[in-house]
Amino acid sequence: MSAISIDLVRKTAELSAEVTCPLPGSRKIYVTGSRPDLRVPMREVIQSPTQTHAGPEENPPIPIYDTSGPYTDPSAHIDLTRGLPEVRSAWIEERGDSEMLPGYSSAFARQRAEAPTLSWLRFPHPRRPRRAKPGCAVTQMYYARQGMITPEMEYVAIRENLRLDALRADPRYQRLLRQHPGQAFGAALPQTITPEFVRQEVARGRAIIPANINHPELEPMIIGRNFRVKINTNIGNSALSSSIAEEVEKMVWSARWGGDTLMDLSTGQHIHETREWILRNAPMPIGTVPLYQALEKVEGRPEELTWEIVRDTLIEQAEQGVDYFTLHAGVLLRYIPLTAERLTGIVSRGGSIMAKWCLAHHEENFLYTHFAEICEILRAYDVAISLGDGLRPGSIADANDAAQFAELKTLGELTKIAWAQDVQVMIEGPGHVPLQLIQANMDKELAECFEAPFYTLGPIVTDIAPGYDHLSSAIGATLIGWKGTAMLCYVTPKEHLGLPTKEDVREGIIAYRLSAHAADLAKGLPGAQLRDNALSKARFEFRWEDQFNLGLDPERARDFHDQSLPHAAHKLA
Amino acid sequence: MSAISIDLVRKTAELSAEVTCPLPGSRKIYVTGSRPDLRVPMREVIQSPTQTHAGPEENPPIPIYDTSGPYTDPSAHIDLTRGLPEVRSAWIEERGDSEMLPGYSSAFARQRAEAPTLSWLRFPHPRRPRRAKPGCAVTQMYYARQGMITPEMEYVAIRENLRLDALRADPRYQRLLRQHPGQAFGAALPQTITPEFVRQEVARGRAIIPANINHPELEPMIIGRNFRVKINTNIGNSALSSSIAEEVEKMVWSARWGGDTLMDLSTGQHIHETREWILRNAPMPIGTVPLYQALEKVEGRPEELTWEIVRDTLIEQAEQGVDYFTLHAGVLLRYIPLTAERLTGIVSRGGSIMAKWCLAHHEENFLYTHFAEICEILRAYDVAISLGDGLRPGSIADANDAAQFAELKTLGELTKIAWAQDVQVMIEGPGHVPLQLIQANMDKELAECFEAPFYTLGPIVTDIAPGYDHLSSAIGATLIGWKGTAMLCYVTPKEHLGLPTKEDVREGIIAYRLSAHAADLAKGLPGAQLRDNALSKARFEFRWEDQFNLGLDPERARDFHDQSLPHAAHKLA
Repeated sequence: MSAISIDLVRKTAELSAEVTCPLPGSRKIYVTGSRPDLRVPMREVIQSPTQTHAGPEENPPIPIYDTSGPYTDPSAHIDLTRGLPEVRSAWIEERGDSEMLPGYSSAFARQRAEAPTLSWLRFPHPRRPRRAKPGCAVTQMYYARQGMITPEMEYVAIRENLRLDALRADPRYQRLLRQHPGQAFGAALPQTITPEFVRQEVARGRAIIPANINHPELEPMIIGRNFRVKINTNIGNSALSSSIAEEVEKMVWSARWGGDTLMDLSTGQHIHETREWILRNAPMPIGTVPLYQALEKVEGRPEELTWEIVRDTLIEQAEQGVDYFTLHAGVLLRYIPLTAERLTGIVSRGGSIMAKWCLAHHEENFLYTHFAEICEILRAYDVAISLGDGLRPGSIADANDAAQFAELKTLGELTKIAWAQDVQVMIEGPGHVPLQLIQANMDKELAECFEAPFYTLGPIVTDIAPGYDHLSSAIGATLIGWKGTAMLCYVTPKEHLGLPTKEDVREGIIAYRLSAHAADLAKGLPGAQLRDNALSKARFEFRWEDQFNLGLDPERARDFHDQSLPHAAHKLA
Repeated sequence: MSAISIDLVRKTAELSAEVTCPLPGSRKIYVTGSRPDLRVPMREVIQSPTQTHAGPEENPPIPIYDTSGPYTDPSAHIDLTRGLPEVRSAWIEERGDSEMLPGYSSAFARQRAEAPTLSWLRFPHPRRPRRAKPGCAVTQMYYARQGMITPEMEYVAIRENLRLDALRADPRYQRLLRQHPGQAFGAALPQTITPEFVRQEVARGRAIIPANINHPELEPMIIGRNFRVKINTNIGNSALSSSIAEEVEKMVWSARWGGDTLMDLSTGQHIHETREWILRNAPMPIGTVPLYQALEKVEGRPEELTWEIVRDTLIEQAEQGVDYFTLHAGVLLRYIPLTAERLTGIVSRGGSIMAKWCLAHHEENFLYTHFAEICEILRAYDVAISLGDGLRPGSIADANDAAQFAELKTLGELTKIAWAQDVQVMIEGPGHVPLQLIQANMDKELAECFEAPFYTLGPIVTDIAPGYDHLSSAIGATLIGWKGTAMLCYVTPKEHLGLPTKEDVREGIIAYRLSAHAADLAKGLPGAQLRDNALSKARFEFRWEDQFNLGLDPERARDFHDQSLPHAAHKLA
């Protein structure tokens, strides 16, 4: 690693200082599964006792779903130049259906790996890529359909349960486990998530475990409407800002505050290298829009895109370990005229790129025509597909129009093709939708995409709040999450205005964690109300520290309290 | 006014500088009704033209409901020591059913008016109080039931319409007036609000116009589910902070950002004087919880409260001009044991005061037993009643329990008593409710309180977000507003943690303006989508200034944009 820049090394140290400290009042625990290398991380918030007339009364620790990765484990040694421990390597190897390749299959990746001018920013300890052996599928869906419960499936079962069975058997939790009946709109949430239940949901395509075999650092998680509602965060450098080190720091930051998955939407010269740094240090699934990079390769001219360039990009990214690709394969030539009367045309960047290509060549979208071939590539790495909604509405006015719903129907058709090859699929959704039109989005998605997990961007429920679109969209996200959306793509306060800072990222994540949790509560997810109940009890008993620590953002809660009542005495009584 | 403190005079000047400037890109307009002194203020956002190949294309001005009062009128002369112009005085006098009193009817008010030690902070130009002539009712409900359309009713009709009829006839607005059909859950929103429609809604108790005859400075507004959803803001000094000048400034600040009504929840020594300053300068209806002041009069000992003290307080405040009183008259002795098994007991301050009184005396709540007498007082000034939900849940765990719904039923009983005396009523609601239990709150309120307007505090939809409760509650508020709640009481980010600053107030108001508007859109309020459409068009055309100015918070939108792209060039393109 002699050639790596001093700046990157310095940033590594900074990260350690800033982001690796445990959250206040919390400790990291691990629940071990059926094998010793299957250790599922959780966070426990320690509470202080209640002072009663009869003496102190214990308040038990509250387990919390933990997305923060090894960064919040005081015993973990973090070295960003080495990457995270490869928790999944043994599982992948044991299956015996994949092999290490001698080098990158992508021409572009080989060229980048060899270019001497890039050595200063290249990740210093590259992994060798792995691919399915000829004729093999290595997707979680394939295994599930074969009746096989993978360690990944067991991992997510333990993770989703958050020790609920143990808590139910513990008298200290009895009162705190009381919960209102939910209203689940057809979701079927079991009292306990078993590995077999996970397998069944993955087999029928109702849930996905994005887990590329080239991302062994991943802590597996699941996306499906019979599990906790998840949130995605986006990062991405741009010509205007952001170095690699900043992007890696944003990824760790996102993990810390609760991002379940992360999309790297970087543009600019060093997309490939940035992605490598992120993947090797990412405990969560990483998604990308490969088209963005393909467009860089043709200097930003959509009409010059070719299937060959995109194909090489898919392979390049699959061998780096990207866990899911957003592919705008449903933007069909004949749908483009349906957007002509819109107030805000086509606002999806990927959608607009493909529309330009289709119109320039007057040919059908090559992602659509080559879709089966794409699936063949992805099944060899287990890259999940997030079917992009390139024709999503860009305003309240354009919500639920003919273009949007025509594309959705095509996404259903593509889902069937992907499933035929055991490729995991989720479906992207809007965007901008007023409240009364949200239900139709969910209903249509479930019907036309056969219950494949829905993954929406908000939606924003009014367009009049620039500067507050995290909030406008969190309202829509909560409602659609309740109705059955499996993952909510966050929006920051800077949406429509500029690039988010770290504080904007935090604000967006907390808004969406709140939304996802409110949706879980409303659906009646077993155990979801425990944290609310514990926090409410702490609040009622003026246990301020416990109230802060049980909250989504202990630092802000404490800070706000201290602005009015800074004295320690005000945190007791 | 020689004795008034220099500090207050100085603050007056500061206000002028800080809060009276018009919002960017906006101008104040007035729509005149059937008489020249009926001038309804609105704000118009001026837009720049769209640059097309065929030359510039005009974008017409967008009218916006304006709560900001004369403070944003550059031609208004603001002098806080004089108070606002008395827009309603002639209307009240003309009715001939009320008379000026020689002095205050309340013993407490007389004593405060005469105490020499208070001259430094007393409002320097007091009004003489007015009361109904013996045997007369002066409530808007009384007039409505008599078939009379008051200037207040005409005023709110014009205000609610926002010139929609004129816009419909103007070709420049045709495309911008397109709107999705709403889903109104039984609300009946007319295409145009006529004064007669307002009269009917007030007559049947489905809407209220809080408008005390002692608050002639008021710009009338209406609260009911067939009108725009409204928001209430709270201010209040406390022993720990806030001077009178700060409270007045917060009131003006609240008006500026969009508070429709304002509750003065002040405590401490100078409640009476603070309220006078606020009322004389308030363009919006002012509400109070008279019990808070009554409690100060017995030095904070609930058990020492008496009906006589409360009665004098009601008269004191009614003669100052308070427009609505929150009265916790439904907290009955027999309901208190229903809270014993709660996780968070009784969290309403008023509810807890009355519960303590009931238990100390083992007698029925005197607000309940004297309710008819209370109504007799209020009908002589037209003070509306906001029936407080003293047993509202303080946590998700306690939502929709027996105590809460028992009280709600009693509020319905009290509604009938008030209506029998032509007193206007609204019903307060929670608080803390998970999403799936919100509908039941609305359904029960409509059924058991005979469609009297519902006025809820959020509700917060999860308890795990201290520091973000404006957001948690805005989610619940949006949903319950859509279902039919007429007014949403805002929550700031400091809720549960500390006292809000001016910035917190702004954050809370914008969150709630967003909620109320999203609810209007979802209900299909005619014309509601106009502002969304105009902003979306501006966004799509990169008319940045128009996008900022059409938003709820132009300053923040511009600031966020400039953080990323500070150059003027980035605001065109």
